[in-house]
Formats: sequence, C-alpha cells, structure tokens
Amino acid sequence: MVGNRIHIIIVAAGSGRRFGQPLPKQFCPLNGRPLLMTTIERLYSAYSEAELTVVLHPDYESMWIDECRAHAFNIKARIVHGGATRWHSVKNALDSLDAAQDDIIMIHDGARPCVSQTILKRAAEAVMSGKDAVVPAIPVTDSLRRTTNGGGSEIVDRSRYMSVQTPQAFKASTILEAYRLGFNEAFTDDASIVEASGICTVSIVDGDPANIKVTHPIDIGIASLILSVQY
Amino acid sequence: MVGNRIHIIIVAAGSGRRFGQPLPKQFCPLNGRPLLMTTIERLYSAYSEAELTVVLHPDYESMWIDECRAHAFNIKARIVHGGATRWHSVKNALDSLDAAQDDIIMIHDGARPCVSQTILKRAAEAVMSGKDAVVPAIPVTDSLRRTTNGGGSEIVDRSRYMSVQTPQAFKASTILEAYRLGFNEAFTDDASIVEASGICTVSIVDGDPANIKVTHPIDIGIASLILSVQY
Repeated sequence: MVGNRIHIIIVAAGSGRRFGQPLPKQFCPLNGRPLLMTTIERLYSAYSEAELTVVLHPDYESMWIDECRAHAFNIKARIVHGGATRWHSVKNALDSLDAAQDDIIMIHDGARPCVSQTILKRAAEAVMSGKDAVVPAIPVTDSLRRTTNGGGSEIVDRSRYMSVQTPQAFKASTILEAYRLGFNEAFTDDASIVEASGICTVSIVDGDPANIKVTHPIDIGIASLILSVQY
Repeated sequence: MVGNRIHIIIVAAGSGRRFGQPLPKQFCPLNGRPLLMTTIERLYSAYSEAELTVVLHPDYESMWIDECRAHAFNIKARIVHGGATRWHSVKNALDSLDAAQDDIIMIHDGARPCVSQTILKRAAEAVMSGKDAVVPAIPVTDSLRRTTNGGGSEIVDRSRYMSVQTPQAFKASTILEAYRLGFNEAFTDDASIVEASGICTVSIVDGDPANIKVTHPIDIGIASLILSVQY
C-alpha cells in the first residue's frame, strides 16, 4: 500500500510585506491567536498521526515559539527555515524529511486556515489509491482576461479554467524527484513543479470554495466567519 | 463631452437554481432585506442622477415590488424582464433604454452588493475620458489550471490573467451596436461581447477584491462583513 506515513508541510515563510499589516498574514490574529495555529490545528484534526513540518522565516521563529507557549498550543510541528522563494522553502522542508519512497507528502499554504478534513482526506486518499500528484481545484466564478503580448488583454473561456488550492498531495518519491530537478521561478504551486518535471501528470480532486487563501486584511474576518459556520 | 447621462443596468434575472437556497441569491436576506436592495442603494449613492434599470425574472417581479414596499425601499429603478440567458436579459434592458449615442451605459451584476462608489466612478470616468469599453479587474490570487483537449489539465501563468468584475462601463453607441450583432453563448461578460464585435478594444481599470460576486450561501455573510468594514 502506498502511504505508510503522511508528512504535511505547512508553508508559512513569507515575511508579509504585501499584506499591509504589521505582521505577516500567517501570524495575524484569527479568533484571538496567530492564524497559523488554526491552520495547523485543522490539519492535525484530520490526521493526528501525520508528521507536521512548518516552514518559517528565521526572523519569526522565536516569536512563533513564544506565541505557542502563550496560547498553550501543543500540537507538535517541526520548524524548518524558509528560503528566498516559496520553491526554496518547500525544498528545505523536503530535504529535512525522513520519508520513505511510498509515503505521502502533502503541502499546504499556511494562509489557508479554513482547510477542512474533507478536502485533506480527499487529496490524501487519491494518492493512496494510486495517483502520484493530486491538487484540489474549484471552478473559476469571475470572467477571466489574459494579457496579450501587445500590452492589451483578451477574454478567455473561463469554463476551461480552475482555481487551484492546497493541500496538494504527492507520492513522496514523485515530489522529492521533482524538487531535485531545480528551481524555475515560473512555478506558483507544487503540482506545476511536478508537471514540469515530466514525472507524471497531475490529478484534480474537488476543492472547496470555503478554503480561501488569506490575501487581503479583510480575509481574516472572512476566515473567522467561515470557521464559525463550519463548526 | 461623452456621457450626458448615465444609465445603469442591474442584472438580477437569475432564477437561482444553483445557489441551493429557497430564493435566488439576489433576493436572499443581507442585513435583513433582499441583497439586491443593497446593490441598488450603493449604485444610487454614487450616481443619484443615473437612470437605474433592474432586470428581473418575471416570476419574481411581484415579490420584488412587495419587498420594496415592506422595506420602504424608494430608490426608483425601472423593471425589465429577463430572457433565457444573461445575454438576452441585458439585450432586453438595452432595448428598453432611451439612450443617446454618447450617453454612458453601465452594466452591473445584481449579486455584487459590495460595489463601491470608487469603482463605479473609476469605470464611468474612464468612458467620460474617451474609452469605449471599460472593465474593472483584479489579479488572480490562486494558481490556475486549464483543461486540455485530451481531458487532462495544465498549469498556466497566472500573472497573465485577471479576474473580471462589474460594473462594466460603455459608451452607449458601442454597447448598443455590439448587442445588435446577436447572441453567442460563449460570452460571460459584456466586455467580451463588445470585444468579439470588433467595434473597439476593452480597457481595464483597477477592480476591488471586496467587490465579490455572491456565488455560495456563505458569501452572504461575507458580504455583510465587508459592508460592516467599509461603512
């Protein structure tokens, strides 16, 4: 059986300059404590036996440890330091794992605190049943335009597009091999790194519109609202 | 000067079978009254002199009139009946207007109640300053995948894509001519209808991440939260 063990990497290494708040978004208060705690807690509630690794910017490591103590947050998550880009951060985490070839490695954005057990299990179970690389995705609801080489833009058929979320799930040997092949700044998610490597194709499972990525300050309140409805 | 008068068409003709609630989303309660009232009120607050036209499914017209009476909602908006598709609904509204060639016609989704004065004026003023067709758009924040002809999917470069919102603003002669050219079911917004007509290119102005389209039931609560922060 594929997937003796599940490793979950939580990417939270941003220094948050784009968020417009004093703290990077993963540390902003959500229901009274750093948002990242909710993310970790919800992943843990789905797979309490999983090995959790959180990738942090070194400047925020001691603050995180202090916050965990202050909030009596006791879910064990190994800390790995982030790198210059998201790719380098995930690479550091992968290099730190003691993973067997047929383990499952999942990678999740720290800034998606509304992740559900359902979506996490859906992605993991797709790998258990033989897929190499699995991403959750949802339909695009707004119309989409694409910039053209001439500086203008053109409409595209949105029914052919999907918004990609995390957690993304991989057979360990697949994601480890894909990251061995090196850095390309065009990649914005892990599945595309696997895809570009040519190792395997990417499978889609249903995502969840409630699984938002906190991007703007208002999204913290939106996440709180979603969590209040879900539980 | 272009834009002696401003006409705003609010498209709210859906019968809402996809929303999963007893009522179509535009009539669901937002802060205690049908969502559509907030949309209309916010458009009116930006351009109180504009002529408002709301497109409704005929089955809901009497309910809307009753609700307006019950909530003492007195902003005047002409009612036009919707058609079989969004295109037909907008066409009905355009046909009902008494618009001069150089008036401004704006088209807005009834299900975007968080529309701001800023975004409305930004789009209108771009037409006043000489653009023929203007849409607000925001960067795409999730990674995007596109389905391929073989049934799979592939990553695309999300930095080249924008999410298109409403209100969309047009020189009257432009949008009226574009709709004279007939129906194509591939169109999901009015700017793409203008673009396909070949009459002019489409200009982009900055959209607003808070200008959400209510798509899922949770979005009603999210809209209420956004409105509580904005005012």
